[in-house]
Amino acid sequence: MRVAGTPYRTIWPASDGWAVEVIDQTRLPHQFERVRLETLDDAARAIRDMVVRGAPLIGATAAYGMALALRHDPTDRSLDAAAKTLVATRPTAVNLGRAVQTMLDAVRPLPPKARAEAAYARATAFCEEDVAGNRSLGRHGLAVLKDLAARKAGGGPVNILTHCNAGWLATVDWGTATAPVYLAHRESLPVHVWVTETRPRNQGALTAWELGEEGVPHTFAVDNVAGHLMQMGVVDAVIVGTDRTIGCGDVCNKIGTYLVAAAARDCGVPFYAAVPGTSIDWETDDGAGIPIEERDPREVTHVAGQDGSSRTVAVRVPPEGTPVANYGFDVTPARLVTGLITERGVCAASREGLLGLYPERR
Amino acid sequence: MRVAGTPYRTIWPASDGWAVEVIDQTRLPHQFERVRLETLDDAARAIRDMVVRGAPLIGATAAYGMALALRHDPTDRSLDAAAKTLVATRPTAVNLGRAVQTMLDAVRPLPPKARAEAAYARATAFCEEDVAGNRSLGRHGLAVLKDLAARKAGGGPVNILTHCNAGWLATVDWGTATAPVYLAHRESLPVHVWVTETRPRNQGALTAWELGEEGVPHTFAVDNVAGHLMQMGVVDAVIVGTDRTIGCGDVCNKIGTYLVAAAARDCGVPFYAAVPGTSIDWETDDGAGIPIEERDPREVTHVAGQDGSSRTVAVRVPPEGTPVANYGFDVTPARLVTGLITERGVCAASREGLLGLYPERR
Repeated sequence: MRVAGTPYRTIWPASDGWAVEVIDQTRLPHQFERVRLETLDDAARAIRDMVVRGAPLIGATAAYGMALALRHDPTDRSLDAAAKTLVATRPTAVNLGRAVQTMLDAVRPLPPKARAEAAYARATAFCEEDVAGNRSLGRHGLAVLKDLAARKAGGGPVNILTHCNAGWLATVDWGTATAPVYLAHRESLPVHVWVTETRPRNQGALTAWELGEEGVPHTFAVDNVAGHLMQMGVVDAVIVGTDRTIGCGDVCNKIGTYLVAAAARDCGVPFYAAVPGTSIDWETDDGAGIPIEERDPREVTHVAGQDGSSRTVAVRVPPEGTPVANYGFDVTPARLVTGLITERGVCAASREGLLGLYPERR
Repeated sequence: MRVAGTPYRTIWPASDGWAVEVIDQTRLPHQFERVRLETLDDAARAIRDMVVRGAPLIGATAAYGMALALRHDPTDRSLDAAAKTLVATRPTAVNLGRAVQTMLDAVRPLPPKARAEAAYARATAFCEEDVAGNRSLGRHGLAVLKDLAARKAGGGPVNILTHCNAGWLATVDWGTATAPVYLAHRESLPVHVWVTETRPRNQGALTAWELGEEGVPHTFAVDNVAGHLMQMGVVDAVIVGTDRTIGCGDVCNKIGTYLVAAAARDCGVPFYAAVPGTSIDWETDDGAGIPIEERDPREVTHVAGQDGSSRTVAVRVPPEGTPVANYGFDVTPARLVTGLITERGVCAASREGLLGLYPERR
């Protein structure tokens, strides 16, 4: 997508053909800076320090990290050490382990001197697969938006509400929840996005930045506003991303998603999740059983932003010593989900619905 | 309630018997400072600058403001000018107009030289009425908490979730939504409060401060967490305040209340509003018709807190120039409300329910 008019991905090969560049997401939305990764350690640090974030982008960075390691030393020992280092950066990220395994499978059978080149090729393919999958998901979501537009009695833009950042910044390009929106905008289907702040980490600011750079009309609001907007009838559909969607159709996503879904149901607003096939957990039967990560209380007590001198500062909101709970995700039960938008089509949020699109899982 | 072990109200006569003191709420929760009001202008400024906040406390401050004005000049001209000045400080505050009218009714029939003394007496009575009403509301709410405690199979504290600050800081003492909690705590009924941050103005930080000073166990969390907590079964009831409750039982309260109510219904958690009789709007038939205040976007884009040097700083979260919507309130339809807790008892959220407690409105 575009940044100041120039098309970007979140990760790309440097002009020298061997290093890798990424966007420093720790500085967004206030500064746009590119970071060059030259070594395995650079890649590992970028993941660990959240210079890159979002499951698909973390996977892509790990894939290139393997290539960087093998360029330096293509031995078995180097290969195994690189895999171990990368997997340890974010132990709970499922895509990360999967990306590393894909790379191991691709290069281990090869003689050492052929490994680096093959690794770059596999990492590039990994990124292209992400982009193609998101574009395909976007096409199926666009059909949903077109249907909503056709049924809008009063005309005007299709109003989408999204929570958190399931945008192109979290993937290699297009994003998941945002892919239908970007395609609609490029096809001149009028669309407007309500962006929730997404406390505690305020990823809504990233979504607002993305949409603004791409020129998509949007409005930013605190999370508390979502219900009132739906009551007012100014939301045609909710589209959120997912960290993990259970085989039964339960959607695990950023904390607060369930509140939006419950109010959407109360207001009769359709609620969709954008679900890449790679994020489906076929092994689990009930979302209520998913362990929910509890995170650092400081994310809640301290809010980071720019002060009057454009310096990034963190300020504490509640009194010092206040006990804090900080759950990172919640689970929206399938019964509240209108449909799952995948790269293979839109289906009901149920095992039958998903198996219809992924029959190989039967 | 207590602050550092000392009992306080939010407004009280100074030791000289004529000035009035209040707590500077613009400095809470980080600093506790008392402010002395000596003139009409002091009182008006305290209301305008939100040194005092919360409808009942604003009313009480206006009542004392009239007394301060009449002490200086008890003429009709002074009386009318004081009323006009005070009403203009927060034009949308219903209690403010009501408090000023109460004062006018009490003093205008008197000869000027008797007015100041009568005004102080009426202002004091106004405060006592607020305290007595809240204590009574608290008693009825306490019965609800005792009932919840008795039905708790596993034992443990009664877990209440509240949104915004409907605490003693918003009233003269006890608060509304917090009154049952403070009474429970004083009667040694174990209770624990989930306090939502309440973006954009973070009044949850005030609630956390109040509860902390009074020694009531509590946990602070972002607004997004409310649904997940109810799904986990760790919320026995929601109790919120109200800015205006419609005669039909619809509850207008701080933005985000409706999200909590919709999720509470989905989870089967009882949802109560603490409703002083003075906050009931008998004239309106449908909460959907209430105009919802749109406020300064800066409340959303900038978050105020303490930096590392204990200075209060505001930081900007979304990109500069992001379009923002900032609705101050939402309306929870009566069908999602388990009951209304008033100073006269608990009733169904319906016109019939309310008229049972306020038969004079039939």
